[in-house]
Amino acid sequence: MTEKVQKHSVETYAASKRDSFEALLKEFVEIPSVSMDPAHQADVLRMSEASVHTLNAMGFKTRVLRTPGNPIVFAEAKVSSKAPTVLVYNHMDVQPGGDPGEWKTDPFTFVSKGGTYWGRGTTDDKGPALAAMFAARHALDAGVEVNIKFLWELEEEIGSPNFEAGIKAAQKHLQADAIVVSDTIWISRDKPACPAGLRGLQGFILTLETGTTDEHSGTTGGAARNPIGELCQLISQMYDARTGKVKIPGFYDDVVKPTRKELQEFKDSGFSVEKFKQDHGFKSLRVEDELEIMKRIWAMPTLEVHGIVGGYQGPGVKTVVPPRAEAKISMRLVPNQKSRKIIAALKRFVKEKNPDVRVLPESTLNPYKGVSEGPLAEMIRRSVQFGFGKEPVFVREGGSIGAVPTMAKVLKAPVLFLGLSLPEHGYHAPNENFDWGQAYGGIKAFSKFFEEMETIKRRRRKT
Amino acid sequence: MTEKVQKHSVETYAASKRDSFEALLKEFVEIPSVSMDPAHQADVLRMSEASVHTLNAMGFKTRVLRTPGNPIVFAEAKVSSKAPTVLVYNHMDVQPGGDPGEWKTDPFTFVSKGGTYWGRGTTDDKGPALAAMFAARHALDAGVEVNIKFLWELEEEIGSPNFEAGIKAAQKHLQADAIVVSDTIWISRDKPACPAGLRGLQGFILTLETGTTDEHSGTTGGAARNPIGELCQLISQMYDARTGKVKIPGFYDDVVKPTRKELQEFKDSGFSVEKFKQDHGFKSLRVEDELEIMKRIWAMPTLEVHGIVGGYQGPGVKTVVPPRAEAKISMRLVPNQKSRKIIAALKRFVKEKNPDVRVLPESTLNPYKGVSEGPLAEMIRRSVQFGFGKEPVFVREGGSIGAVPTMAKVLKAPVLFLGLSLPEHGYHAPNENFDWGQAYGGIKAFSKFFEEMETIKRRRRKT
Repeated sequence: MTEKVQKHSVETYAASKRDSFEALLKEFVEIPSVSMDPAHQADVLRMSEASVHTLNAMGFKTRVLRTPGNPIVFAEAKVSSKAPTVLVYNHMDVQPGGDPGEWKTDPFTFVSKGGTYWGRGTTDDKGPALAAMFAARHALDAGVEVNIKFLWELEEEIGSPNFEAGIKAAQKHLQADAIVVSDTIWISRDKPACPAGLRGLQGFILTLETGTTDEHSGTTGGAARNPIGELCQLISQMYDARTGKVKIPGFYDDVVKPTRKELQEFKDSGFSVEKFKQDHGFKSLRVEDELEIMKRIWAMPTLEVHGIVGGYQGPGVKTVVPPRAEAKISMRLVPNQKSRKIIAALKRFVKEKNPDVRVLPESTLNPYKGVSEGPLAEMIRRSVQFGFGKEPVFVREGGSIGAVPTMAKVLKAPVLFLGLSLPEHGYHAPNENFDWGQAYGGIKAFSKFFEEMETIKRRRRKT
Repeated sequence: MTEKVQKHSVETYAASKRDSFEALLKEFVEIPSVSMDPAHQADVLRMSEASVHTLNAMGFKTRVLRTPGNPIVFAEAKVSSKAPTVLVYNHMDVQPGGDPGEWKTDPFTFVSKGGTYWGRGTTDDKGPALAAMFAARHALDAGVEVNIKFLWELEEEIGSPNFEAGIKAAQKHLQADAIVVSDTIWISRDKPACPAGLRGLQGFILTLETGTTDEHSGTTGGAARNPIGELCQLISQMYDARTGKVKIPGFYDDVVKPTRKELQEFKDSGFSVEKFKQDHGFKSLRVEDELEIMKRIWAMPTLEVHGIVGGYQGPGVKTVVPPRAEAKISMRLVPNQKSRKIIAALKRFVKEKNPDVRVLPESTLNPYKGVSEGPLAEMIRRSVQFGFGKEPVFVREGGSIGAVPTMAKVLKAPVLFLGLSLPEHGYHAPNENFDWGQAYGGIKAFSKFFEEMETIKRRRRKT
């Protein structure tokens, strides 16, 4: 087989597209498509329009899949009905900007300096999406015989509540022989990683209302219930924050422990505790043992408190007894935990400990167990090697991508990961960034991956 | 003795001053003198200027006592060096407005409707201050032979951190035979109350910093420490939020339990659980027993959580591991608890449970045990009866006024209470209000009180 994607030609192509890549990334980042915040709903729709416009302009036939929530952008380039088909998944919605005081630049102003791109969505997930798109253009222009489809979601950051309905309705257009997702993070710049599994997520909002308005703690304190105090107590009953151990009965029942082989891959992954602390700015961790940390972030479930709303947040101490409080918590789940069982277990627990607390489950993302061996894994390995000159490790990803288990289930195709993000890119953090080095390598790796896909065995389709 | 303050004349006077009273209260309420918020520092100074201007215009010789913090406004009318002297204490700073969504009107726009006055500071403490001021004018004009002094503080709501230094420096001008404070709350409109004691207050800010920026809970969760979770745990170790029981060793050691006589006054006070719940909008309480509630709010110490700062507060669940969290807590103290011992006990406790948590004590207000029997109590009783046609009960006040124990200590004079506020006035709550009925009765009661003071035995002065 003659190689259609040649190192020289793809590098020339990528270099020639750097200006276009940066212009598009600027345009995309400056649309604050924050799916979590209803105030940004119009921006989310602008983002879908910009996506349609961009994919069309790049020569892909684009349409919008309607859902009861935000639309999904779908695009395709059909080469031949006999050719294998690959579906590329990215998402175009982003996390909220967060505390502006923690950003060195405005989160929704694109700043490019010395090959680094700053702004919310640069690495999660607009930069990787554009890299894959340019790569597809190049592969097709180079004569790669693969049908390429794109799915750009706009509700990933809120747990893909309408994704399943959206792709079910468009199922016949979405058939593919493999799905590739670019929304995951390497171990380090020198250590590409391809997850062989993702954690799931189950969010909850716990609310307790004991009064009507802020009351004076001198006048009422002692008799008045304190909803913040009671939520603190409930959370402490749920888990030991010092160790991380969850105390809800049944929580760990269905956890599948990593195999010996997986643990060996973890050990060989090049993961460094020092680098982990440095990348994320941690002063200390719950534990310091390297393997234990990898198990905890990749293969064990968690409980986290993300915020407690209610009471006084300003300077000093305002001595109020607040009327209500809300705790935002979530659990990361691992194979084979089932969110349904976890929701029931938490509700039972809260009912027993403090029945006045209302439990509102937020979106559910299922955990996913993927491939780390076999021909598909080898294709990914060769593509990363081609793009970056380094072999990837197959570990696990601690984060969750709701669309992954959904696509695997609905489209019945294997889901592979070709992530381009680095730990220091600040996923969900202030000063999120991406860089041309990863975009450039990504264009090369994806171009090669599309060519690799030529050899895949076509799945039997429904007619 | 001919009565100089006659019911008819004081009523005529008060009615004739209603417009002036309302105009001044409007002016004062519309200066947002929030001492807790540095953004309002200029307003606090404007408030001191307006106070000086007003007291001068009313015929009192006014000056400003400088302190390292906010000034204290001092005014006096000297009748005779042989006459007894009364010092009236009020404060002109206010609580923050709070959540505008919970106010029916703007907190810093004065709204007068049907004899009710809405706005932050109407009842705490600008309205009562103006009532006392008008009463003093009337008593003096009626020929009452009492020297009257005013102290209007501007740091009460932040725990009077500079009050002691301020009055120590001006001690020789502040000598008085009795001090009267108007900053306390009745049992109900039908049940005037004069506290025979105040709770103290010790605020704390607890901070825990485990990282630098918000981090992705998928990427780091399990290994990362969660500062909100750890503070929740620490708070739950400090106290049982369901029962209110504080678990810090030594916390209750110095508590003086109410005497049998005091408990009898509590029982006779007319306190009603239903009305308490209704006045404060509580859906439920920690306990339902009437006497137990009175003990808890008047005579027992507490621990409260006022807010937890850190993490995500917006809509939905943003799955971050926050880098730091801050808990705002306070304790109400009762005689003979000493804040110094309490601070030490809490610091020891935190050091043992979670040594990374920093404990920052906020301002200290000492508890105060006042008079409920004897000639001074009788003078108050008669003045309230004159002003409102009802006998007061001598119970306790659950709130704290830092200036009270300080004045008792520095000026070595008894501190009496002649409060005008009602539970439904919303101390520290949204929709704070005051009403002409209480102001009118207050002008009468204070006028009578100044006359009663004619008979007090003059204290021996330093020369």
